[in-house]
Amino acid sequence: MTTIPFMRRFRRPRVRRRTAPGAAPGVIRPDPQAPPPVIRLLGYGAGEIEEVDVPHVAELSRHLGKHAVTWINVDGLGDAETIAHIGRLFDLHPLALEDVVNVHQRPKVEEYGDYLFIVVRIVEDPQYARTEQISIFLGKDFVVTFQERVGDCWNPVRERLRTRRGRIRQLGPDYLVYTLIDAAVDAYFPVAEEYGDRLDAIEEDLSHGHAPQSFSSIQHIRSDLLVLRRAMAPLREAVNQLVRDPHALVTGDTRIYLRDCYDHTIQILDLLQTYREVCSDLREFYFAMVSQRTNEIMRVLTVIATLFMPLSFIAAVYGMNFDRVASWWNMPELGWRFGYPAALCLMAAVAVGQLTFFRRKGWLGSRKRRRRHGTAGSPGTARYDSR
Amino acid sequence: MTTIPFMRRFRRPRVRRRTAPGAAPGVIRPDPQAPPPVIRLLGYGAGEIEEVDVPHVAELSRHLGKHAVTWINVDGLGDAETIAHIGRLFDLHPLALEDVVNVHQRPKVEEYGDYLFIVVRIVEDPQYARTEQISIFLGKDFVVTFQERVGDCWNPVRERLRTRRGRIRQLGPDYLVYTLIDAAVDAYFPVAEEYGDRLDAIEEDLSHGHAPQSFSSIQHIRSDLLVLRRAMAPLREAVNQLVRDPHALVTGDTRIYLRDCYDHTIQILDLLQTYREVCSDLREFYFAMVSQRTNEIMRVLTVIATLFMPLSFIAAVYGMNFDRVASWWNMPELGWRFGYPAALCLMAAVAVGQLTFFRRKGWLGSRKRRRRHGTAGSPGTARYDSR
Amino acid sequence: MTTIPFMRRFRRPRVRRRTAPGAAPGVIRPDPQAPPPVIRLLGYGAGEIEEVDVPHVAELSRHLGKHAVTWINVDGLGDAETIAHIGRLFDLHPLALEDVVNVHQRPKVEEYGDYLFIVVRIVEDPQYARTEQISIFLGKDFVVTFQERVGDCWNPVRERLRTRRGRIRQLGPDYLVYTLIDAAVDAYFPVAEEYGDRLDAIEEDLSHGHAPQSFSSIQHIRSDLLVLRRAMAPLREAVNQLVRDPHALVTGDTRIYLRDCYDHTIQILDLLQTYREVCSDLREFYFAMVSQRTNEIMRVLTVIATLFMPLSFIAAVYGMNFDRVASWWNMPELGWRFGYPAALCLMAAVAVGQLTFFRRKGWLGSRKRRRRHGTAGSPGTARYDSR
Amino acid sequence: MTTIPFMRRFRRPRVRRRTAPGAAPGVIRPDPQAPPPVIRLLGYGAGEIEEVDVPHVAELSRHLGKHAVTWINVDGLGDAETIAHIGRLFDLHPLALEDVVNVHQRPKVEEYGDYLFIVVRIVEDPQYARTEQISIFLGKDFVVTFQERVGDCWNPVRERLRTRRGRIRQLGPDYLVYTLIDAAVDAYFPVAEEYGDRLDAIEEDLSHGHAPQSFSSIQHIRSDLLVLRRAMAPLREAVNQLVRDPHALVTGDTRIYLRDCYDHTIQILDLLQTYREVCSDLREFYFAMVSQRTNEIMRVLTVIATLFMPLSFIAAVYGMNFDRVASWWNMPELGWRFGYPAALCLMAAVAVGQLTFFRRKGWLGSRKRRRRHGTAGSPGTARYDSR
Amino acid sequence: MTTIPFMRRFRRPRVRRRTAPGAAPGVIRPDPQAPPPVIRLLGYGAGEIEEVDVPHVAELSRHLGKHAVTWINVDGLGDAETIAHIGRLFDLHPLALEDVVNVHQRPKVEEYGDYLFIVVRIVEDPQYARTEQISIFLGKDFVVTFQERVGDCWNPVRERLRTRRGRIRQLGPDYLVYTLIDAAVDAYFPVAEEYGDRLDAIEEDLSHGHAPQSFSSIQHIRSDLLVLRRAMAPLREAVNQLVRDPHALVTGDTRIYLRDCYDHTIQILDLLQTYREVCSDLREFYFAMVSQRTNEIMRVLTVIATLFMPLSFIAAVYGMNFDRVASWWNMPELGWRFGYPAALCLMAAVAVGQLTFFRRKGWLGSRKRRRRHGTAGSPGTARYDSR
Repeated sequence: MTTIPFMRRFRRPRVRRRTAPGAAPGVIRPDPQAPPPVIRLLGYGAGEIEEVDVPHVAELSRHLGKHAVTWINVDGLGDAETIAHIGRLFDLHPLALEDVVNVHQRPKVEEYGDYLFIVVRIVEDPQYARTEQISIFLGKDFVVTFQERVGDCWNPVRERLRTRRGRIRQLGPDYLVYTLIDAAVDAYFPVAEEYGDRLDAIEEDLSHGHAPQSFSSIQHIRSDLLVLRRAMAPLREAVNQLVRDPHALVTGDTRIYLRDCYDHTIQILDLLQTYREVCSDLREFYFAMVSQRTNEIMRVLTVIATLFMPLSFIAAVYGMNFDRVASWWNMPELGWRFGYPAALCLMAAVAVGQLTFFRRKGWLGSRKRRRRHGTAGSPGTARYDSR
Repeated sequence: MTTIPFMRRFRRPRVRRRTAPGAAPGVIRPDPQAPPPVIRLLGYGAGEIEEVDVPHVAELSRHLGKHAVTWINVDGLGDAETIAHIGRLFDLHPLALEDVVNVHQRPKVEEYGDYLFIVVRIVEDPQYARTEQISIFLGKDFVVTFQERVGDCWNPVRERLRTRRGRIRQLGPDYLVYTLIDAAVDAYFPVAEEYGDRLDAIEEDLSHGHAPQSFSSIQHIRSDLLVLRRAMAPLREAVNQLVRDPHALVTGDTRIYLRDCYDHTIQILDLLQTYREVCSDLREFYFAMVSQRTNEIMRVLTVIATLFMPLSFIAAVYGMNFDRVASWWNMPELGWRFGYPAALCLMAAVAVGQLTFFRRKGWLGSRKRRRRHGTAGSPGTARYDSR
Repeated sequence: MTTIPFMRRFRRPRVRRRTAPGAAPGVIRPDPQAPPPVIRLLGYGAGEIEEVDVPHVAELSRHLGKHAVTWINVDGLGDAETIAHIGRLFDLHPLALEDVVNVHQRPKVEEYGDYLFIVVRIVEDPQYARTEQISIFLGKDFVVTFQERVGDCWNPVRERLRTRRGRIRQLGPDYLVYTLIDAAVDAYFPVAEEYGDRLDAIEEDLSHGHAPQSFSSIQHIRSDLLVLRRAMAPLREAVNQLVRDPHALVTGDTRIYLRDCYDHTIQILDLLQTYREVCSDLREFYFAMVSQRTNEIMRVLTVIATLFMPLSFIAAVYGMNFDRVASWWNMPELGWRFGYPAALCLMAAVAVGQLTFFRRKGWLGSRKRRRRHGTAGSPGTARYDSR
Repeated sequence: MTTIPFMRRFRRPRVRRRTAPGAAPGVIRPDPQAPPPVIRLLGYGAGEIEEVDVPHVAELSRHLGKHAVTWINVDGLGDAETIAHIGRLFDLHPLALEDVVNVHQRPKVEEYGDYLFIVVRIVEDPQYARTEQISIFLGKDFVVTFQERVGDCWNPVRERLRTRRGRIRQLGPDYLVYTLIDAAVDAYFPVAEEYGDRLDAIEEDLSHGHAPQSFSSIQHIRSDLLVLRRAMAPLREAVNQLVRDPHALVTGDTRIYLRDCYDHTIQILDLLQTYREVCSDLREFYFAMVSQRTNEIMRVLTVIATLFMPLSFIAAVYGMNFDRVASWWNMPELGWRFGYPAALCLMAAVAVGQLTFFRRKGWLGSRKRRRRHGTAGSPGTARYDSR
Repeated sequence: MTTIPFMRRFRRPRVRRRTAPGAAPGVIRPDPQAPPPVIRLLGYGAGEIEEVDVPHVAELSRHLGKHAVTWINVDGLGDAETIAHIGRLFDLHPLALEDVVNVHQRPKVEEYGDYLFIVVRIVEDPQYARTEQISIFLGKDFVVTFQERVGDCWNPVRERLRTRRGRIRQLGPDYLVYTLIDAAVDAYFPVAEEYGDRLDAIEEDLSHGHAPQSFSSIQHIRSDLLVLRRAMAPLREAVNQLVRDPHALVTGDTRIYLRDCYDHTIQILDLLQTYREVCSDLREFYFAMVSQRTNEIMRVLTVIATLFMPLSFIAAVYGMNFDRVASWWNMPELGWRFGYPAALCLMAAVAVGQLTFFRRKGWLGSRKRRRRHGTAGSPGTARYDSR
C-alpha cells in the first residue's frame, strides 16, 4: 500500500482572477507570466495576399484598409498596451478586451453593435487536457485573433489562403472565422481519439488482472474528459448561435458551413460522452473484479481453515497427557493396537467429508462451475459467449 | 483469476476523421479501405419500371429524366470521382457529399434549397452492434442513396416496386424515402429482440449460480445498447423533423406514414431503454449475489473456527507437560479417574453451547430461516412468492 | 446457495413485430394466436338504447345510423377481414387498423381528419404486470373499440348506459370515450395498491431478517412498476392532448371531465414513482443489512480467534518436550510448585485483558453500544426513536 | 441481528379510491370513517364582521349575501348531503365536490367559469409526515373551505379578521384566500425544521459510532421528506398559476402577495431538497463507517492470527514426540543446554519481525498514521482540519 | 474507532422564520440578535460627491434630492423603525421590507412599479460557507442597500466613486447597482479557489494512505459547495433577468456590463460544479482504497493461515501420545532413525508447495504483478503511466 502510489496526484486547472472584487470593469491586466505579443497581419482579396510580421503595434495602422479582408493574429497576451492599442484601432469594447486577457472564459459569442466577439478554447496538449483560450473579433472587413502563446492549429488555413485552395480567398471575413473555428473544433478529434486509445489500454490491463493503478488512471481520464467537455459544450452553443441568430456579419452561405461545424461539435460531445460512460463501466469492472478477488481469497482461506481445524483438533486430543496408568478410563485409545492408524483414518474421513461438502458448495476452484454453466446455458448463451 | 478471463476485450467503434484539422471543407476523401461503388438505377412511374445496373457513373445521365421517380443507389464509397460526379449531376452541396464518405455522421435531416439530405444508420451486424451509415438525397423527381457496402434491408421495397404491391408506384419520391427509412427503422426490431434473448440467457445463468463472465457480458450488452441508442435517438429527431417541418418535398399524405414511422422509432427507443434498465438490474443482481456468497463463505469459516478453537485450546491445555510428580498442584486432572471422559464431556458441552448460539444467530444454513420466514410472511407475500 | 434459487426468472414481455422490415405499411396481419372477434353493438340516444350481439361483421351495417351514438366493441383481433370490414364501414385509415392488431402500441391520440384514433393500455393481470392494448376510434356519431380478448373493465359503463344513471345517455360519443378511458385509468388504482401491499410484505420480511429472495422480489416489482409506468406515462400525455388540443369532436364540457381523468393519470404516475423509490430504498436496506451481517460475523470470528490464539499458544509452549533432565535451563516452570496454576492464571489474565480491549472497541455485542447511544442522544433523538 | 430491529416498519400512506373503476363521475361518496361536518360562517366587510356556527346546512342560506365577503368553513367530510347542499348553494361543479371528499388530491388550481377550485395540502402531524387535504372555492363574494377534520392553522387569520389587523378586512375574497394559502404554506417551515433537528441528532449518533438503527431512521426521514415534497411541489405550481394566469377573481394587488407566498414555497422546496441530500450524505457516511469498521476488525484479526500462528507452530514442533533415544537425529534440540531459551528467543525474534512488518504496513493502530498524516499535510490541510 | 472521530459534526445553516404561520404579511420583525443599523449616505454626480454618516434615520431626508445619484447603505437590521422609515421615504412595499429582515431569501429580482428590489447573497466566511443577504433597492435616482452587519466587499467601489476612476460617476444608479452586484459576484472567486486548495490537500492526503478523516472532510466540502451553489444559481437567474427583461431603470449600456457579470456567475457555477464532481471522484477513490486495503489484509491473512495450518497439523500429529510400546502400529515414525528430519522435510515441502501456489495466484506482494503489467501494457499505457 505504501510502496505503490495507489493514486497519483492530479493537476487540476485553476481559475484565478487577477482583478480584485469591486475593481473597475474593462481594465486590461495581463498575467505577469504571459509571453509578449507577436503580431502578424495577413491581408487578402480575391486576387492578392500580403503577409506582414508587425514588430510593433504602432505600425499596424499603416497596413489597414488596403485589403478586402485583414486578419491580425496576436500570439501572447503579455503587454496591456498592445492589446489596448488594437482595441482603439478597431473600436473594441473594454469588457471584451478584459476577457481577452482573462484567459479562463467559456466559449461564447457576444454581439457588440458592428462586430462580434467570439471565444473558443483549443486543446493545448492532450497529455494534460489543458485548454487554451482563443479570442476572435469579427468585423466588416477585419478579423482579429488573440492566442495565449505562439503555435496554433491554423497553419493549414494560412496555407490555403496563400495557395488559393478552397474558395476562401473569394469570401469575406465571416468565412475566414468559420475556417478558424472549424480548424479549432476539428483539432479535438485526435485528442478524443487519444483518450479512446488510453481507455483501450486500461481495459487491456484490467482484463489481465487487478491493477491498482488502473483505478487512478480511469479517474484521471474521467477528469480530463470533463475538462474537454466543459470546453466543447459551450462552444457548441456558440456555434449554434452563429448559425441561428441573425447577424448581418454572417452570410447565409457561411451559415451552411457553420452548420457543418456545429455537426462536428455534436459528434465530439457525443464521443466525449461515450468515453465518460466507458470510464464508468471500467470503474464498475474494477469494483466487480476487486470483490470477485476478495471472494476468491476468502474461499481459499475458508477451505484451508475448515479443512485443517478439525484435523488439528483430533491430533491435539491425542496429544493430551492424561495418566493412563492412573485409570483405565484415561485415553485407552492410546494403548489400542491400531489406535494410531485409526486416528489417521478418522482424520482422512473428516477431510474427505469436508472436501465433498466444499465440492457441493462449488468452492473448489472454478473448473466445475464452468462445466455446469456450459450445460445450463441456453443456445443463446453459447452464441454470445463465443463471440 | 488468471485462468478465467474475467473481462473480455470489447471492440469499441472508432470515429477517425481522415481530413486534417484546418483542411478545406467539402473535399471528398474516401476511406482507402472502402469498397468500390456499385451503382444501380431504378426508375418507375405509375405504369412502368426500369432497373439498370450502371457499370460506370458516366453512363448515368442517359437514364435520367425518363421516369416519374428515379432512384439511384450506390453501394460502396471507395471512389471519390463517382460520388463527385453524382453530386454534379444533381447539384448536391460539397458539404453533404463530404458527409456521405465520412461515415460517422449522426442521423439528421438537412435542407439544401431544392433537395433534402437525410442520414440514417442501420444495424450491420447485431453480433457487434456496428451501425452502417446510409445517406439519402431526396429531390423533386429523384432519390439518391449511398451505402457503405453491398447488401441492405431494402430488397422487400424493390420487390414491392416491381410487383405493384402497395401504392408505392403511384406515389412520389417522398413516399419512396419514407419506405426506405421505415425499412431501416424496422430492421432494428429483430436486433433489439436479439439483445432481449441474450439478457434472458444471462438471467438464466445468474439464477443458476455465480458466473464471473456474466458481469462482462452484461457490460458489453450495455455498451452495445448505447451504440444502438446513439444511432436511434437522433433518427427519431430526424423523422420527427420530416413530420413537422414544412418541406415542399414531403406531401401531407406521406407525413401520416412518417408519423407511423416516428411511432416505431419511439417504440425501439423504449425497448432499448428497457433493456438498459434490465442490464442495470442484472448488474445489481450480480453484486448482490457476490456479497451474498462472501457472506455465506464467511459464515462457514466463522462457524468452523469458532467451534474448534476453544476445543483445541482445551486439548492443548491437557497436552502441557507440567511435572505432576514435582507438585500436587501440577495438573492433577491428568491423574483423575474420569479425567479424560470429563475433558471430552467439557469439549462436547462447549461445542453444544456454541452450536446453540449459532442456531440462534441463524448461521447454521438457511433452512430454519426460511421456515421462520414462511410464518412471518403475510398472505400477500405467499401469493407473490408462489408466482 | 445452490439449493435456494437466489433469483427467480422473470418473464419479460416481448415486442415482436410480425411484419418484416420493408413490408408495405397498412397491412393487417393478425397474431395467429389471437382469439376470433366477438362483435357487440350498443346504440343509444337520450330516450332509447339497443344492445345487439352481431354474429357476423356483414350484418353490422344494418344497425348503423339509427342512434345518436353507436358503440361497436370488438373483443379479439384474430380475423383480418372483420377488422378490414369495420375499417371500410367507417372509412378508417389502414395505418390505424395496422396499429389495432400490432398490440404493442404506446398509448397515443392520432387525428385522422374526421375521427380520432386513441390507444389505451389496461392492466390485464396485476400478478404479471402485463398490459392489454385497447384501440378506440371516436367519430361524429360512433365509437369503435377493439380489445385483445373478451372481458374488460367496462361493465359498469354499460350498466350506466342501460339504467340512465349519470348523464351519459344525454351526451355525445366524446363523453362515452371519456367514460371508457376514465374506467381504464381508474383500473390502475387497485393494481398499484396491490404492489403497495407486496412492498409492505417485503419490508416486513426484511425487518425480520435477511431473506435472500427479497432482493429478487424487489427487483421484479421494480420491473413491473416500470412496465406500468411505461403504459401510463404516454397515456397521461394522450389524455392531456385530448384536454388541450382543439378537436371539434371533443366538446368543452367533456374536456372538464377529461381534465379530471388527467388528474387521475398524474396521481397514478405519482404512486408508481413513489413505489419505485420505495423499491430503491428497500434495495439499499438489503445491502445495508448484508454488510451489517458480514460485519457482525467478522466481529464474532475476530473475537473468538483473537481470544483463543494466545491462550493456545501458551498451552503449546508448555506442551514442548525440552529435556528438563539434560539442563536446568530447559522449562524449569514445569517443575515449579505452582507452575500449572500460574500458567492457568497467565491464560486467564490474557483473556481478561483481551476482553477488556474488545469491550472498549465495542465488539462484545450491541447492548453496551446502545446504552452509550441512549445517553449521547439529544432529546430529539429520543423522540424519533420512540416513534 | 435478531434482537436489534435493524429496520423499523414504515407506515406508508395509502391512496385508496372508494369509487369503482367505471362508476359515474361527480358522485360524492364520503369516507365512512370521516367525521361529521361542522360548519362555521364568517362574514365581513370593511366595517363589520359576523361569526356564526351553523348547526345545519339548511340554515346556511339565511346568512348569505349580507357581507362583502362570506367565508364558510366546513370541518369534516362525513356527510354527502351537506357537501352537495353547499355545492348547490354556490353552483359548484360535481367533479370538484367529488375531489373534496376524495382526499388524496394533489394541490392544484382549477378554473370553473366564475369560481376557482384550489386544493392545498397541509401537514397534519410532523411525526408521521401525513398531510391533510384542504379544498378552497373562491367566488366573487364568497370563500368556501373544506377540511378533513376540526383544528387548523387558520386561527391567527380569524384573529386578524376580528381585530382589523392587517388590511384584510378592506380587501376582497381573493386576499382572504391568499391569507389562507400563505398560512398553510408557512406551516411547513416548523415541520421542515423538525426534520433538520432529527438529521442533526442522527449525525450526532453516527459521529459517536456505528448505530444500526441510524440507517433505518435516515431512510424513514428520506421517505417523509419525499411525502412533504410531493405535497409542496404541485402547491408551488398552483400558487405560481395564481400569480401568472389571468383570473378576473385575483386582483393585481393580491398577486404581489401571492408572489411572496410563491417565494416561500420555493424556500420550503429548497429546504426539503437540502435535507434529502443530507440524508444521502449520511447514508454514504453510514456505509463508509461500516466498511471502515470491517476493515479495522479484519486488521486486528490478521495481526493476531499472523502473529500467533508461526509461534504456535514452533511450539508444536517442539511438542512432537520423536524418540530421541532411538536416534541421534531425532530432535536433538530438546537435549541442548539452552534449547528452551533458544526456542523462546526464536519465537520472540519471529514476533518482533512480524510486528516490524505490521508497523511498516501501518496496521498497528492509527496513531502512527495520523502522525505521518500531520507532517504530510500542507498548511491548507492544517487549516481545515482545525476548523 | 472510538478514539478517532470518524465524522466531525457539521454546522448546518438553519432557516428559521420568526413570523408565525398565519401572521399578517409585510410586518417587519427583526431578528433580536441583529446588530443596530448604521446608516451611511453617499451622493454623487458627474462633478461632485458627498459622504455622510447619518446618525439617525430622521436626518436622512435632509440629504435627499441633492445629487444625481444617492446611495444609502444600512449595515445591521436590528431596528424595525429605521427600516420602516426608509421604506416610507422611498415608498417601498412592506413585503419587500419584510424580506429585508428575513435574511434567508434566495437571490431574486422583483419589480415594484418604479423601483426594483434585488436580493444578493455574499459569502461571509469561506471557512464555514455561510452566506449573508444583501438587499438592494434601485430607483430612478437612488440606491438603497441593506446588509446584515458592518463590513463588506464594496470598499473598492466607494474608492472608485471618490477618485473618479472608471466612468462610474458619470453614470446612473443602475450602473452603481451593477458595480455592487459585480463586486459581490467576484467575491466568490477566492472562496471557490479556497475550496479547490482544500480538495488538493485532501487528494494529497489520500494519495499517501488511508485517512479516515478525509471522508468526513470530503463530505463537508460537498455540503459547503452545495450551500454556495444554492446562493449562486438563483443569482445567475436574477442577473440574467436584469440583462434580458425590459426595465426602464436599466439602460442598454449597463446591460452590456451586466452581461459580463452574468458570465462571471456562470464561471463560478461551473467551478462549483467541477469541485462537486471532484468531491464525488475523491469519494470513489476513498472507497476504492478501502476495498483495496481490505483485499490486501485478507491476502496476508490467507497466506499466513494457509501456510501454517498444515504445518501445525503435521507437528500436532507427531505430538500425539499413542503408546508405541503397546503396538508396533502406533506411530512407528517416532522411532525411525531420520523421523524428525523427515517430518521437517515434509513440512518444508508443504510450505514450498503452498508458496508456489500463492505465487501463481499473484498473492505474494505486488512486485511480480507490476512486472507482468509492465510487459502486458501497450505503448499507450506506458505513455500515460509516465505522465
